[in-house]
Amino acid sequence: MPDGMIEYMTIFEKSLELHRQFGGKITTSLRDQDQIDQTKLSAYYSPGVAEPSRAIANDPSLLPVYTWTNNLVAVISNGSAVLGLGNIGPKAAMPVMEGKSLLFKHFANIDSVPIVIEAKTADEIVDTVKRIAPSFGAINLEDIAAPVCFEVEERLKSELDIPVFHDDQHGTAVVTLAGLINATKVTNRDLSQTKIVMVGAGAAGTAIAKLLHLYAQPEIIAVDSKGILSRDRTDLNPEKQTLLEFTNPNNINGSLEDALSGADIFIGVSRGNLLNEHLVSLMAPKPIIFGLANPDPELSYELATKLDIGVYATGRSDYPNQVNNAIAFPGIFRGALDNNVEQITDEHKIAAAEAIASLVQDPSPEEVIPSVFTDGLVQTVANAIR
Amino acid sequence: MPDGMIEYMTIFEKSLELHRQFGGKITTSLRDQDQIDQTKLSAYYSPGVAEPSRAIANDPSLLPVYTWTNNLVAVISNGSAVLGLGNIGPKAAMPVMEGKSLLFKHFANIDSVPIVIEAKTADEIVDTVKRIAPSFGAINLEDIAAPVCFEVEERLKSELDIPVFHDDQHGTAVVTLAGLINATKVTNRDLSQTKIVMVGAGAAGTAIAKLLHLYAQPEIIAVDSKGILSRDRTDLNPEKQTLLEFTNPNNINGSLEDALSGADIFIGVSRGNLLNEHLVSLMAPKPIIFGLANPDPELSYELATKLDIGVYATGRSDYPNQVNNAIAFPGIFRGALDNNVEQITDEHKIAAAEAIASLVQDPSPEEVIPSVFTDGLVQTVANAIR
Repeated sequence: MPDGMIEYMTIFEKSLELHRQFGGKITTSLRDQDQIDQTKLSAYYSPGVAEPSRAIANDPSLLPVYTWTNNLVAVISNGSAVLGLGNIGPKAAMPVMEGKSLLFKHFANIDSVPIVIEAKTADEIVDTVKRIAPSFGAINLEDIAAPVCFEVEERLKSELDIPVFHDDQHGTAVVTLAGLINATKVTNRDLSQTKIVMVGAGAAGTAIAKLLHLYAQPEIIAVDSKGILSRDRTDLNPEKQTLLEFTNPNNINGSLEDALSGADIFIGVSRGNLLNEHLVSLMAPKPIIFGLANPDPELSYELATKLDIGVYATGRSDYPNQVNNAIAFPGIFRGALDNNVEQITDEHKIAAAEAIASLVQDPSPEEVIPSVFTDGLVQTVANAIR
Repeated sequence: MPDGMIEYMTIFEKSLELHRQFGGKITTSLRDQDQIDQTKLSAYYSPGVAEPSRAIANDPSLLPVYTWTNNLVAVISNGSAVLGLGNIGPKAAMPVMEGKSLLFKHFANIDSVPIVIEAKTADEIVDTVKRIAPSFGAINLEDIAAPVCFEVEERLKSELDIPVFHDDQHGTAVVTLAGLINATKVTNRDLSQTKIVMVGAGAAGTAIAKLLHLYAQPEIIAVDSKGILSRDRTDLNPEKQTLLEFTNPNNINGSLEDALSGADIFIGVSRGNLLNEHLVSLMAPKPIIFGLANPDPELSYELATKLDIGVYATGRSDYPNQVNNAIAFPGIFRGALDNNVEQITDEHKIAAAEAIASLVQDPSPEEVIPSVFTDGLVQTVANAIR
């Protein structure tokens, strides 16, 4: 395909064309790029390979010394909550997971294998991942629907001796916290004194709320499609009930409109164009608005430019301040693998968020989050994971 | 490590050194070697990647068109029967499986991922492999102990829509048949009129006996550590009982010595130095001896050169006529992937064996099996798998 043609194609046509042309996005190659002769074959396979195998049998901690697991992340999904596509199942999720493996390689030089699994319940997913876990150095869970994803991650973290990280939750939370650290500076706020309305109580929303609470204990009001999460609601799943332990301190009830009154910060992981001029006008002056729904943010860019917004961030690469998980996860896994970290903890996530925020030299409304292409980004984040 | 040093190290020391130096044997890289800019990222990941995902959701047969599964084999083992090491478990088996992935890449340019699994029973293995199967284009089972391996392969073949091949069984069987096709030529025998003693009734032995029977119906006497497999034995597992359907037609009982009387062909997948001069003298003149035990064959090379052997083959690369699975499996999987073969059948195995045999232009006692480095080997075998 001549380069010139690309411009005339939509991103979807171009995507199909590139995927068809290359037949996917990743491939394997040999670490040893020298000639593989009979002697090398005897060292890398029978009979020589018996020796590293014996060494690992005697001391399993040598697995990353003698195998590629030292640099290897499994991207695991059952395809039950694929961005913008929903529950499309494992095969249809494969291009997304292979894309994630491309990002791992491209940004952090991490070897990564997409593993899509035919499994629906938490038991099935946990069982499958535990059985294949000896093959990997770390596990990135991806696009698994809430609330199953919470139980899956929790159980795998406690039962495996390698890092397990659900990027939809924590990658988004880390980048959001990084952005808010700078956005509160830019608007002269103290994060711990802010009132935050958080709309969407799925995987990402829950993780964002938890990390913000841990970091600064702001006042958080969580809102789902039925309204404000309060202790009077009888329809909340256990994970949403957990949010009530540290949100909505005055136990108010009502709609998004009720929640927004005087709020400093809006964070949306819900649906496009949820906000309008009236709703924004209920917030404090110069509000911070993170509209992370894709492809259409909760507050449209067009409308945002007309209102007196303090800082505006979205999930899109064509607007300022992109909340992009790829700012966080490559460095987080790079650090976890390089430092033999067994678990990625809340302290790691906060350190990663602070490291990301620090990369914006001079925060401004147009730049509270560094670009994914920032020099030294991966290593700066990796250094935070020790 | 300077090249000169290699010679002074044993193969085991060299293996440890190479594995440590490179930190394993395989790595991932991007199929698209051009610059990955923001536009490419948008095509390979969000938002563009949604389009190939939608295409696969609508038509799952497009999975290999848009993902790397078109060229991808999983090498799967639970580490329960690793060559020369026994039941060492998944982690210790990893160097061997990663070595197999190296062979796939080196010989057939096939992407391959080693998956070692924590699973003991056939149910556990089958369940795990079925759940991860949507991630791959084909499955190579490796070093799974008999008799579990038989049930695992049979069930996976019937329940999955991608090729499943237990290389310990069928790779060995294909190369052995190829060698015997030429060895019988060299010694002026008709394979269907031969008497064959087959020692070792595990994974490889069983597969060899079945393939030989299917190809030429020779007289086969199978022998295990307790003696000749006969219908009077009460200690046989179901798989060994199956062998009796077409072996030992006269239902003789006794030891290896009894079996060898007048035999044309000895095939051993048992233990080193099982045969001595006396035992060989019981066989027909100019016997064909395939001693496949590793590292020491059933008949030592030293003794073989002193006796009047027709054709002598082993599993070793430093003797003539190496029965090496790597002669068969790269081409078999290359053909299966390239031709969208859903199952590797007995007809495919026979065609592969004939293709391998045909690559020896002028068979002689020193050359009945082509070297693994023979030009055109992989493509010749691949062409047989349609």
